[in-house]
Amino acid sequence: MRADPGRSAGPISLATIVRRLGGRVAGNPEVLVARVGSLENATADSIAFFSNPRYKSKLAKTGAAAVVLAPSAEGLTELPRIVADNPYAYFAHLSRLFNPDADPVPGVHPSAVVAEGAAVAPSAQIGPGAVVCAGATIGARTLIGAGSYVGEGAAIGEACRIHPSVVIHSGCRIGARGIVHSGAVIGADGFGIAAEEGRWVKIPQVGRVILGDDVEVGANTTIDRGAIDDTVLEDGVKLDNQIQIGHNCHIGANTAMAGCVAVAGSARIGRNCTIGAAAVILGHLSIPDNTAISAATVISRTLHKAGTYTGMYPFDENAAWARNTAQVRRLSELADRIKALEKRLADKENKDG
Amino acid sequence: MRADPGRSAGPISLATIVRRLGGRVAGNPEVLVARVGSLENATADSIAFFSNPRYKSKLAKTGAAAVVLAPSAEGLTELPRIVADNPYAYFAHLSRLFNPDADPVPGVHPSAVVAEGAAVAPSAQIGPGAVVCAGATIGARTLIGAGSYVGEGAAIGEACRIHPSVVIHSGCRIGARGIVHSGAVIGADGFGIAAEEGRWVKIPQVGRVILGDDVEVGANTTIDRGAIDDTVLEDGVKLDNQIQIGHNCHIGANTAMAGCVAVAGSARIGRNCTIGAAAVILGHLSIPDNTAISAATVISRTLHKAGTYTGMYPFDENAAWARNTAQVRRLSELADRIKALEKRLADKENKDG
Amino acid sequence: MRADPGRSAGPISLATIVRRLGGRVAGNPEVLVARVGSLENATADSIAFFSNPRYKSKLAKTGAAAVVLAPSAEGLTELPRIVADNPYAYFAHLSRLFNPDADPVPGVHPSAVVAEGAAVAPSAQIGPGAVVCAGATIGARTLIGAGSYVGEGAAIGEACRIHPSVVIHSGCRIGARGIVHSGAVIGADGFGIAAEEGRWVKIPQVGRVILGDDVEVGANTTIDRGAIDDTVLEDGVKLDNQIQIGHNCHIGANTAMAGCVAVAGSARIGRNCTIGAAAVILGHLSIPDNTAISAATVISRTLHKAGTYTGMYPFDENAAWARNTAQVRRLSELADRIKALEKRLADKENKDG
Repeated sequence: MRADPGRSAGPISLATIVRRLGGRVAGNPEVLVARVGSLENATADSIAFFSNPRYKSKLAKTGAAAVVLAPSAEGLTELPRIVADNPYAYFAHLSRLFNPDADPVPGVHPSAVVAEGAAVAPSAQIGPGAVVCAGATIGARTLIGAGSYVGEGAAIGEACRIHPSVVIHSGCRIGARGIVHSGAVIGADGFGIAAEEGRWVKIPQVGRVILGDDVEVGANTTIDRGAIDDTVLEDGVKLDNQIQIGHNCHIGANTAMAGCVAVAGSARIGRNCTIGAAAVILGHLSIPDNTAISAATVISRTLHKAGTYTGMYPFDENAAWARNTAQVRRLSELADRIKALEKRLADKENKDG
Repeated sequence: MRADPGRSAGPISLATIVRRLGGRVAGNPEVLVARVGSLENATADSIAFFSNPRYKSKLAKTGAAAVVLAPSAEGLTELPRIVADNPYAYFAHLSRLFNPDADPVPGVHPSAVVAEGAAVAPSAQIGPGAVVCAGATIGARTLIGAGSYVGEGAAIGEACRIHPSVVIHSGCRIGARGIVHSGAVIGADGFGIAAEEGRWVKIPQVGRVILGDDVEVGANTTIDRGAIDDTVLEDGVKLDNQIQIGHNCHIGANTAMAGCVAVAGSARIGRNCTIGAAAVILGHLSIPDNTAISAATVISRTLHKAGTYTGMYPFDENAAWARNTAQVRRLSELADRIKALEKRLADKENKDG
Repeated sequence: MRADPGRSAGPISLATIVRRLGGRVAGNPEVLVARVGSLENATADSIAFFSNPRYKSKLAKTGAAAVVLAPSAEGLTELPRIVADNPYAYFAHLSRLFNPDADPVPGVHPSAVVAEGAAVAPSAQIGPGAVVCAGATIGARTLIGAGSYVGEGAAIGEACRIHPSVVIHSGCRIGARGIVHSGAVIGADGFGIAAEEGRWVKIPQVGRVILGDDVEVGANTTIDRGAIDDTVLEDGVKLDNQIQIGHNCHIGANTAMAGCVAVAGSARIGRNCTIGAAAVILGHLSIPDNTAISAATVISRTLHKAGTYTGMYPFDENAAWARNTAQVRRLSELADRIKALEKRLADKENKDG
């Protein structure tokens, strides 16, 4: 159901690789490689990549047969190498060459439950115990993993990978080539409650979740359906694990978020943004295109221009932290005392001439 | 299995609505509406609501047939409108009118596994692949979603919605009208480990999780069973997604928590509290009734009086953040230098007369 | 499938307990106890434990028949008691005596799907709806819970408890006596994406997750597979709920993490560390053995010596917080003004002599 990780497509020469993927060879183009490896642990039939200058010493000691690197790093090793302008992206394609996705095996497992009135493409695979409700559509070459649930009227596009134990609620849509990792929940109710006489009244959540093409959703990530309108993630959005996207958020194309980010309801995040791990984006605000939010940063109001924003409280040895942090609660007083000193000193200077 | 989101109960006049839900009509009471809509995207057969003054311009431009608003906002539009003292709660009831919960379809799906000795109400629905263990009880009109698991001796009350892929462990209890969203885990072991000679010894977690009536638990939220005594959430508690409630916590009635909150073990949170997104409540402390904790705030000790508490580190453009945050580690030194300045200046002033 | 929580192994005398577990009795050794209880709620047939001096008043009022405590606390009560050097660990063993794990009931549930070519030990139990893929191995006396998924070639050791709704992806390994709680996902793809012409290219994640012996993984925790090499958790690592471990992390033996911790990719955490709730460990850094990270602390660079590190921003009443936090953005300026004052005052002092 999944490519055996680490399996090799058989040895290929560097010359063959550059014919397929571009770049150029420096050193012996006939060197054969059979798999990708890390600089640190590569075996003698592996090709590794080098992009982070901090790892120069690893490059020097690598056991790899060859490496992928940038033109600027070409001289750092004598090993046969492929020189590429964007070695990290090159390596992504190269690793895919050695580790192609296994195609789904068309058919519905006998233990799966597919409702009458669901439309499952003949080339799709529905895994053991999966449930596809009435009115749902499953696109061509899409895999619905074991135990996953596709609600009424939900639409999953072509060539999607829905891993085991995913829940996609009624009416939600996933574009082509979507990847949803295990434990993700798409389209649960948003958190809409209204206070009334000391109790909470639930507001029905009748919007949907709409994911564009090429969206990836990490394990145990949750994306809530809209309260009235839809929650939307545009094409190419990439979400890591354990992320929470509140109802009615709108996330622009190709924005990527690292693990454990929390995005509150009705936030509007632009295109090509990057959001660091465990950042918190409060609700009813907007973030422009091309903005970077650092890890563990709380964005509490609308940002009006693109840039890099950070708000990480610095750690320290516990004793030093305790000493310094006690002053945080006195900062306003400290500022007042500085101002008072400035005035007193100015008075004194004036008086003394 | 779930109401088709967005489906309408058929057009109703404003006059009929206020007969059913209260409030009063301003403008033409015969206007018909067929669904709820947002101010922004409402279609001509929709009724929207207005409660946030920031959205005045949206009110002016809305395509809705009618709006719900507060007496103070009555003059802000010429549209037919329903005037209600609490427009947000009113809207909740109104949306429910258009979007009633679908009743469960009584019966046990053939692929579900219900142990002998489990007591399932005849009006309950057990979805495909669900597992109900021995000694468990499932109340009347309750829905157990596809692939969900109800452990030995667990008791689920009447009219509950247990969405697909929920795990409720042995012995736990959920009151009437409970809603548990997909991926939630109720009653996993608390994190109880004791250090012994450099290793950890697991402490059996033999308490239960007890949820009162009208509790809602968000997607992928976890509530751990007690170590010895129970973990308790009183009536009306509302938890958003991805929340962690540690063992032996006690959460008072009608307290609501936004997404990604972490509550460590044995915390005692009062009634009618609100806890903002991604707040962290440390363990073995208590928080009084009617307390509000802001988003991303760490509560590290018991609070003795109700109020609003905040501890969000401010974000800034990266360069400004780096400059300012470097001083955080020197705050204690800065305070000392201010004190020294005050002394030197006073000495000088005294000396000079 | 699980021991009934709270069930008792029958009354035992204190004398019998110390014969089995060590320690010594003070007071009547013939007192019988039938279960463990908390100081607060213990019934008259219970034995409680006392280790936190803050709970002296609870000790005084407890209804327990007996207590476990440290030699230094022996004089604090007249109750029959067991005196043990490490009362908390003692209590762990004692609770296990009363609450032994139920053995799995060997066999494969008829609704489970075990692929040909999977090797399931005869003494293992495969729960309803569980899926075990080709090439997977399930060790002796191991329980695979309802609806859990074990991918191709994954290897689960002896005497493991894989709770319901767990996903263990292809090729991953879990050592002996592992416990994985519901909703956990082990071996989903790491978050590896390379930017290329404004879009993201996915990097195949072909490493595995390798867990040593005696590892516990909390509910809804996620541990990603390595990009090329493996993600490794050594023996005895204990993870609470909702933790995210990024690809290629290496976590040393007996390190324990509280709930909601986020560990970014390629972090290297030593042995015997403790990481507090909701801490964030950024990627590509290392933390030495025996280090304690406080709750809600962001570790943003390599730590070179063991110690306790903290970075929790202090909370305050909202108004005070707002006043003080406004100064955080001016800290660098405040520091400059202090420096300027020091210089002016020194000049003045010098000038005046």
